[in-house]
Amino acid sequence: MTNLSEKAGQNLEAVRERKPLIHNITNYVVMNYTANALLAMGASPVMAHSKGEVEEMVSFAGALVLNIGTLDDDWVTSMVIAGRKASEKNTPIILDPVGSGATTLRTHAAKQIIQKTRLSVIRGNASEILSLRHKDSQTKGVDSIHSVEEVAHTAKVLAEELKTTLAITGPVDLITNGNQVIRVSNGHPLMGYVTGTGCTATAIIWAFLAVDDDPVSATATALAFLGLAGEMAGKKASAPGTFMIQLLDALYTITPEQLKEWGKIE
Amino acid sequence: MTNLSEKAGQNLEAVRERKPLIHNITNYVVMNYTANALLAMGASPVMAHSKGEVEEMVSFAGALVLNIGTLDDDWVTSMVIAGRKASEKNTPIILDPVGSGATTLRTHAAKQIIQKTRLSVIRGNASEILSLRHKDSQTKGVDSIHSVEEVAHTAKVLAEELKTTLAITGPVDLITNGNQVIRVSNGHPLMGYVTGTGCTATAIIWAFLAVDDDPVSATATALAFLGLAGEMAGKKASAPGTFMIQLLDALYTITPEQLKEWGKIE
Amino acid sequence: MTNLSEKAGQNLEAVRERKPLIHNITNYVVMNYTANALLAMGASPVMAHSKGEVEEMVSFAGALVLNIGTLDDDWVTSMVIAGRKASEKNTPIILDPVGSGATTLRTHAAKQIIQKTRLSVIRGNASEILSLRHKDSQTKGVDSIHSVEEVAHTAKVLAEELKTTLAITGPVDLITNGNQVIRVSNGHPLMGYVTGTGCTATAIIWAFLAVDDDPVSATATALAFLGLAGEMAGKKASAPGTFMIQLLDALYTITPEQLKEWGKIE
Repeated sequence: MTNLSEKAGQNLEAVRERKPLIHNITNYVVMNYTANALLAMGASPVMAHSKGEVEEMVSFAGALVLNIGTLDDDWVTSMVIAGRKASEKNTPIILDPVGSGATTLRTHAAKQIIQKTRLSVIRGNASEILSLRHKDSQTKGVDSIHSVEEVAHTAKVLAEELKTTLAITGPVDLITNGNQVIRVSNGHPLMGYVTGTGCTATAIIWAFLAVDDDPVSATATALAFLGLAGEMAGKKASAPGTFMIQLLDALYTITPEQLKEWGKIE
Repeated sequence: MTNLSEKAGQNLEAVRERKPLIHNITNYVVMNYTANALLAMGASPVMAHSKGEVEEMVSFAGALVLNIGTLDDDWVTSMVIAGRKASEKNTPIILDPVGSGATTLRTHAAKQIIQKTRLSVIRGNASEILSLRHKDSQTKGVDSIHSVEEVAHTAKVLAEELKTTLAITGPVDLITNGNQVIRVSNGHPLMGYVTGTGCTATAIIWAFLAVDDDPVSATATALAFLGLAGEMAGKKASAPGTFMIQLLDALYTITPEQLKEWGKIE
Repeated sequence: MTNLSEKAGQNLEAVRERKPLIHNITNYVVMNYTANALLAMGASPVMAHSKGEVEEMVSFAGALVLNIGTLDDDWVTSMVIAGRKASEKNTPIILDPVGSGATTLRTHAAKQIIQKTRLSVIRGNASEILSLRHKDSQTKGVDSIHSVEEVAHTAKVLAEELKTTLAITGPVDLITNGNQVIRVSNGHPLMGYVTGTGCTATAIIWAFLAVDDDPVSATATALAFLGLAGEMAGKKASAPGTFMIQLLDALYTITPEQLKEWGKIE
């Protein structure tokens, strides 16, 4: 889709010009890498999780990443408070339901955030995303899905039910708002050997959402950008340590023109 | 000991094949590096610390790393809850008593975990391990120990008292269950300039425990693997930043054959 | 100022010889990088934040870094407890008021720490430092300051009011105790693309404070050291991922002689 690759380049350029402030309530494991990825690509990350300041921070930060990777009760409370304030102010929120479906606490936390805030995008792997179904959802569970086509169909129905944009990331990323279905095929196998590349995807989507009103195109172009960075890192590195450093470098060095040319969005 | 080097190669191969899920309740400082090290070597790390989910997580994760590096009361509670569940299910637990002996809180936390859970292995430096003695222990304190032989003797007696396997890491690692005493001499001086190599050792021991029933051989072979990764990183790097990245690469690239050939376990 | 460059080399040499133990109560994002930076330069970091152990830890650690980057109520309490104990024992404390001025919680936390403890140095960017003014301060707010000279004048007045040494870091760092004003111009633009370089500056100042009784010269020489490390990293790296690793390497490899020769302190 030529249009979306074009858009990808424009979004990257816009992020680097405007340097949007991104308020992250995220997990301990990836805080450092996510912050560095956002800085490298040209955005301005801020991490703040205290009940005592999240409303104030999100007000001037403009938007919000919620990631439940190492959650506990206090953090969920802060996420809901921040999410409500962001919803009030009509600023975009993106949820990363890390481990939803794995433990009850995480599934409940993700569903609570979905119910109490107005999410622009939810990004996760297939089992995380499919764990977010309502009891009476018409979609099937992850275990009963056997083909890529079934995942796409299920995600489409679920996006409609949840009234949001879903991004299921994997070797090929799938983005849908219940209406459109977009696939992004940039990426590199070593991304699976670095912790936090998924969470970084979430943060980069947010940066693109800050400059692109359409959640579907913001998400698809952000995932193409990260995937392309992975491809370029993979040309310089053959093992995960070096790869993760080269990935940061690529987020800094990729030009809008390169992204237009090499983004694989369809 | 030819047998243990052989075993080291087999354990590495088994981890890469089975990709065991490792539940870490660890400290903030090393979470990212530990997760990356486990991913690089082929295991699957998960970090979860909330009282509300540790029992569920440890149930399907199969096993547990407890690390008290940045503890507070809530985390100790979670560690005991998770440890009890793991003990019930007979799944291996490994404790890293970071800073035990330095503050009362840490010494108490470590002793509480020892008392309330069934530990397969405890890994620390000499002063951390020796701080775990009972009041009426027959072992001497760390300040009164002046030779490597005395450390070995003391550790042996202590392992018998605590009914577990102890790993005292340093230039030469010492592993004992009160009966056997094994020494591993792989390693590189730059490992002391990277935070979390000790904690990473703990996590790698766990990965090997998941595929090797014998705590002594699992621990010794895991330490040989990390030490060899250090040696290989040291060939490519002469300062700590580059070294820590090369160490991650080496965990990914070392083959079972190399480990069999170059492991120094006796 | 030849004398201070000379002093810089001496301080670096002294840190590497004495390996001072640095107790950090810092933020989640930078814990790992700060610890690695301190290890690389030759100091001994320890991270501990629990109310149950900070008094004990700070007692034998000798000194304290307080950083409010990801604060919540419990952490502020711990910082005050640790700070009081350090003040009692006359050991140096350095505050990094991350985000002070951005949210009420952070401004209050910073002011509370200033009021209740005896700080040797406060390091931040211009808006963070200027947010620390009393209501009836004679200094102007950050928005009304339009030139480098005005910043210097304001900082000087504020340092006198707060009876401490202030370090405002930026392209040129400014250090003042209300009497002397020192400028350090070492540094590299890529430092702004790596999270935690500010917090690392704070930690390195502390390491130099441990070997140099004069807060002004300790701070100026520490900032010259970090800035020079940035310059040397910038010679080997052209993007933030590689740069942040090379920066750690440079902290390890820079010799006292190089720092004497290349430090830009005036």
